[in-house]
Amino acid sequence: LHPDILQFLKETVGEKNVRTQIIDRISYASDASEFKHLPDAAACPTTTQQVAAIMEMAFRENIPITPRGAGTSVSGLTVPVKGGIVLDLIQMNKILKISPEDRLAVVQPGVVYGDLDRALKPLGFSFPPEPASGKVATLGGNVATNAGGVKGAKYGTTRNYVLGLEVVLADGQVLRTGSHTLKCVSGLDLTRLFVGSEGVLGVITEIILRIDPRPLETSTAMATFENLSDAGRAVAAIMKSGAVPSVLEVVDRNCIRAINQNTNMELPEVAAILLAETDGSTKTETEAQMDKITRVFKENNASSVRLAQTAAEAEALWAARKSAYPVIARLNNTVISEDTTVPISKVVDMLEVIAELAVKYDILLVTVGHVADGNLHPHFTYDSTDPDVSRRVTEARAELYRRAIELGGTLTGEHGIGLGKAAFMSLEHSEVAMGVMRKIKQALDPKNILNPGKMDLDVCQE
Amino acid sequence: LHPDILQFLKETVGEKNVRTQIIDRISYASDASEFKHLPDAAACPTTTQQVAAIMEMAFRENIPITPRGAGTSVSGLTVPVKGGIVLDLIQMNKILKISPEDRLAVVQPGVVYGDLDRALKPLGFSFPPEPASGKVATLGGNVATNAGGVKGAKYGTTRNYVLGLEVVLADGQVLRTGSHTLKCVSGLDLTRLFVGSEGVLGVITEIILRIDPRPLETSTAMATFENLSDAGRAVAAIMKSGAVPSVLEVVDRNCIRAINQNTNMELPEVAAILLAETDGSTKTETEAQMDKITRVFKENNASSVRLAQTAAEAEALWAARKSAYPVIARLNNTVISEDTTVPISKVVDMLEVIAELAVKYDILLVTVGHVADGNLHPHFTYDSTDPDVSRRVTEARAELYRRAIELGGTLTGEHGIGLGKAAFMSLEHSEVAMGVMRKIKQALDPKNILNPGKMDLDVCQE
Repeated sequence: LHPDILQFLKETVGEKNVRTQIIDRISYASDASEFKHLPDAAACPTTTQQVAAIMEMAFRENIPITPRGAGTSVSGLTVPVKGGIVLDLIQMNKILKISPEDRLAVVQPGVVYGDLDRALKPLGFSFPPEPASGKVATLGGNVATNAGGVKGAKYGTTRNYVLGLEVVLADGQVLRTGSHTLKCVSGLDLTRLFVGSEGVLGVITEIILRIDPRPLETSTAMATFENLSDAGRAVAAIMKSGAVPSVLEVVDRNCIRAINQNTNMELPEVAAILLAETDGSTKTETEAQMDKITRVFKENNASSVRLAQTAAEAEALWAARKSAYPVIARLNNTVISEDTTVPISKVVDMLEVIAELAVKYDILLVTVGHVADGNLHPHFTYDSTDPDVSRRVTEARAELYRRAIELGGTLTGEHGIGLGKAAFMSLEHSEVAMGVMRKIKQALDPKNILNPGKMDLDVCQE
Repeated sequence: LHPDILQFLKETVGEKNVRTQIIDRISYASDASEFKHLPDAAACPTTTQQVAAIMEMAFRENIPITPRGAGTSVSGLTVPVKGGIVLDLIQMNKILKISPEDRLAVVQPGVVYGDLDRALKPLGFSFPPEPASGKVATLGGNVATNAGGVKGAKYGTTRNYVLGLEVVLADGQVLRTGSHTLKCVSGLDLTRLFVGSEGVLGVITEIILRIDPRPLETSTAMATFENLSDAGRAVAAIMKSGAVPSVLEVVDRNCIRAINQNTNMELPEVAAILLAETDGSTKTETEAQMDKITRVFKENNASSVRLAQTAAEAEALWAARKSAYPVIARLNNTVISEDTTVPISKVVDMLEVIAELAVKYDILLVTVGHVADGNLHPHFTYDSTDPDVSRRVTEARAELYRRAIELGGTLTGEHGIGLGKAAFMSLEHSEVAMGVMRKIKQALDPKNILNPGKMDLDVCQE
């Protein structure tokens, strides 16, 4: 970066909020994905005006800008592949308003999901779409990626909760979208255009979120299946039954084994465990819902069904699922969490495809997933210093994407396209669709300075 | 229209599906709004290919195209103000798929809401966002306007249920957006860009909708208030309490009077009635929710609270609300349904603004509304042959918009901008926001042939 630009950054956000040391640049070079690229500098703005000033300068000077929250992306969303400046927004971390009567909260993008949740809890409210990284991930990132999580099947994803945004555009103009009302159909829906846009259209600087009453009661049950396809069929049958699980998670045999090897839980090493939770404001309601679910478990040959009678029992049932991520992370030097998502009736086929690919490519695949919305996370666990296994992983992932799309699914249910799947966009999206996305990108970011390299939308450079 | 173009239309959709007689053109000149403009012709395609062929020709020949479903818009959305061709989509009325296990339905745009609902009911499912016009309105229109309805507070609007679309673009290219999965974050969210876009970006030819289990039980209660502000405060207090009403409707004194004058219901002529419904899968749940609501009614000085004990009693409580629209329609030769929407805590202020405007402009304003999401429908009922009252109505409406926005509200919660509010867009949206909307419009419809004149987005012509 030219010294004048560094000087401008320091004058704009203050000297201590500009990072140019190699140690800083290295920490901004990567996120939770396998990608890395050094930025030239990072700036940590504390106000919308500072973000706007930086964007105005970047637009004029043609400098790539990569917005970043907590850097928990597993898709390389915050990796600055074209260098330039990382905009670290975690200091914009104020909860500006919580209004239960208006059913909304207004937050800055650097607020951590868990911090908002802690503020809402005493009021009896929550913001349901909690990603697995909710303890550290920021709401700006949640909005930019349309984060999902375990409660998506009942509560939907982040998209359903964003009422309005403040966004700094590529040229530094400040845009306000949506409103403070629960309903709004005034003009084109710019709000949802920015939700899930992965930072390629603008920098989110304020968020109006709908909040929901916190459920007062839950019921929890766990079923084991000796046969993977029975588990898959149970999922579809639950959804067809009209039951409304707030959580329906799968844990596969490889994951159960990994848990048993790394904990003292002594889980039965069955083909799959399904964990279900229902919620509501009365125990009668949650039990009635759970009754439907456990009946379906039994009809689909569950080898055991355990219904928690107490909070402690519920916690014990949850323990297997909750230990999955920490255990998986320890399995090898590299773990890639995939995000294959299919129509619910195809979950059974997708589970079989995953098992098939593990054999075909001789890779340990460990799967958990939010099966009530068809969202599976097969984890590729391998030694990335071994070029042969790395090549097989690459091939297996490409086949996984193709098979998911053949089953009517999508490249990504909640992790995003980012860098990791940019090259696969045309598997899912026609030339017409790619053309429309690129036209919108070009209309809003004509110099391609906003998070370049992501989503395969770069159109004007090179 | 040039004879060659008429010939092309006839060859494309068949002679009987092209309408050029003056009687047909008149019936396509208006919708449920106060606007009128004759098209040159109407064409009724039956396939996506036909729509694509017509758009390709229209793009080449620069002919305005106005897509139309049942024509129930109260905002002039389907009035062809620049002439050209009306694309009447009601013959594309097939339900292509209903898959309860996948929690989705696939429909053509001409399917009537009520017809889908009848198909879903025996399966125990529903598509919750039912507009007041649901018995005749088409799903294409519901998607193009992001239709709301009485259950928005609990279930959200149409936007939350659209998983994917097939859209014919301005130049005749066919775009597929979204997927058959409940979760999808693959690429920019084109699906929601088209939801609520009022036909200005493309013609919707197929819709993938999420469906929900139908609630098994409901509880219903009605409260009367002698004081308008008590009713308004009760609404905010209900939302703050964490109760989840599936319906929360207001009927004001003028509406109650109109109902009493036109029916034998003999309702108490109080300042306002609030009608509440809760739903769930058990009576315990719906009663627990309703218990919170009736407690709040009493704490806010309700003069009476009636809780339905039987289905017949619930129906009797609903009768007042259900008779409102037919009664209002008879009050004068012109009735305009406004759509002012504010944050819930401002419902009390907005109800007072409406009362104030009725006095200030000496107009009968009759109000019902979906207050749990701050959505009020004051109806302007007047003799439009009287120029003086017509002028006052125009002025009062403009002030209503301004006041709603001053209260943090929006021009429209569910009726859309269309023609009626196009001139007021800049009250709510900054130049930056209008600029972004127009860039997107221009990127997707460079010749401005798609539903021109709507949303104040026309950019390239004149």
